Amino acid sequence: MLSVIGIGPGSEAMMTQEAIAALQEADIVVGYKTYTHLVKKWTADKEVIKTGMCKEIERCQIAIDLAEQGKNVAMVCSGDAGIYGMAGLILELVSKQRRNVQVRVVSGITASIASAALLGAPLMHDFCHISLSDLLTPWPVIEKRIIAAAQADFVICFYNPRSHGREGHLAKAFELMTPWKTDTTPVGVVKAAGRKKQEKWVTTFSQMDFSQVDMTSLVIVGNQSTYLSDGLMITPRGYVI
Amino acid sequence: MLSVIGIGPGSEAMMTQEAIAALQEADIVVGYKTYTHLVKKWTADKEVIKTGMCKEIERCQIAIDLAEQGKNVAMVCSGDAGIYGMAGLILELVSKQRRNVQVRVVSGITASIASAALLGAPLMHDFCHISLSDLLTPWPVIEKRIIAAAQADFVICFYNPRSHGREGHLAKAFELMTPWKTDTTPVGVVKAAGRKKQEKWVTTFSQMDFSQVDMTSLVIVGNQSTYLSDGLMITPRGYVI
Repeated sequence: MLSVIGIGPGSEAMMTQEAIAALQEADIVVGYKTYTHLVKKWTADKEVIKTGMCKEIERCQIAIDLAEQGKNVAMVCSGDAGIYGMAGLILELVSKQRRNVQVRVVSGITASIASAALLGAPLMHDFCHISLSDLLTPWPVIEKRIIAAAQADFVICFYNPRSHGREGHLAKAFELMTPWKTDTTPVGVVKAAGRKKQEKWVTTFSQMDFSQVDMTSLVIVGNQSTYLSDGLMITPRGYVI
Repeated sequence: MLSVIGIGPGSEAMMTQEAIAALQEADIVVGYKTYTHLVKKWTADKEVIKTGMCKEIERCQIAIDLAEQGKNVAMVCSGDAGIYGMAGLILELVSKQRRNVQVRVVSGITASIASAALLGAPLMHDFCHISLSDLLTPWPVIEKRIIAAAQADFVICFYNPRSHGREGHLAKAFELMTPWKTDTTPVGVVKAAGRKKQEKWVTTFSQMDFSQVDMTSLVIVGNQSTYLSDGLMITPRGYVI
């Protein structure tokens, strides 16, 4: 059995019962080193295989091999295992390589949900997720999605908004959204949600400071109805109150 | 204190540690009767105030009043409290009425995440949420979002896809997406995720049977890369394997 486990954004409080049980039942834990560290409370007595960044295929292959040998393997992912996580890659590999492995996906709280809870209620109406990383997706596809999402007035959650190699992507995304956003459209940023260094703030479209955003951040841009009240970001659902 | 708690789709396993702790700490639990029933394990010794469907404003008002009186109140929502849940309405009311109430939003596993975990990994790439209920949103706004989402090749999660009063909305949504979908585009449906009557199936765009879908269902329509393999719905992230 190979359980691909979403551990949530990082705090123990935001893990599900199912995720904790799956970790406890596992013989071996595999994951990116930062994530294996976050769950060490439940894995101290187990074999833990850590791999570095950008070793996703290698990491999944190790987990599949061990599971095929009959081990109960837990692959840990931050957030939800099925959202920009390892569940998809594992299922792709198992399917393409015709491996004899039973895969179970264990849901977790993804960054947009955890961040929204800290910012207020910005996701109360239709919204979308767009990753600004062009490592695996051509940039023109990303641009097309940003424009469509702004035009149709979705609340937009930007994953992987900014890194050393992609410093200008978030500013470019804001430039593309400009025709459909006003200067006062609320924007919320959460850095390292649920972890020790957690930070959060709200600002507006025209006041956005891109330099404060990094790879651990999640950026939420409001729709036409989103407003700020006492530092909270609220998107009305449409109730007449 | 008023905690707005996302209890996940319904199974105990999918609740977070934080949600259970917040329920245990509460003096009074308020919620739609189906949801208060799902958490009775943690609330048996507490005062529970249940209200019926379409009583959202009344329900939130009761919770706010009690919290302002100094009670520790838990408002329970299915899925995530901040996604088509009560967190937004509570914050709107507290803000507009200048109520002296501290509100905490407790994240939960929303239907798209729970359903995706059962279907495979359909949400591995950029996706959006669209509610097909036009009770609070004008239908032309919903149509615009469906078209934009299909055109930009988002994976699309349809919330509130079909009810007695809105039997044709899902079929209409499929009609609107037709120019950008092929007959074989995978579609996944999960009914009553995490509950006793849970059902799930995958089909294709042209084979979709709308009559099997109800208000407890979540419908996920794949993007151009989504494929079916051994009954699972997989959207590749883009890794070359």
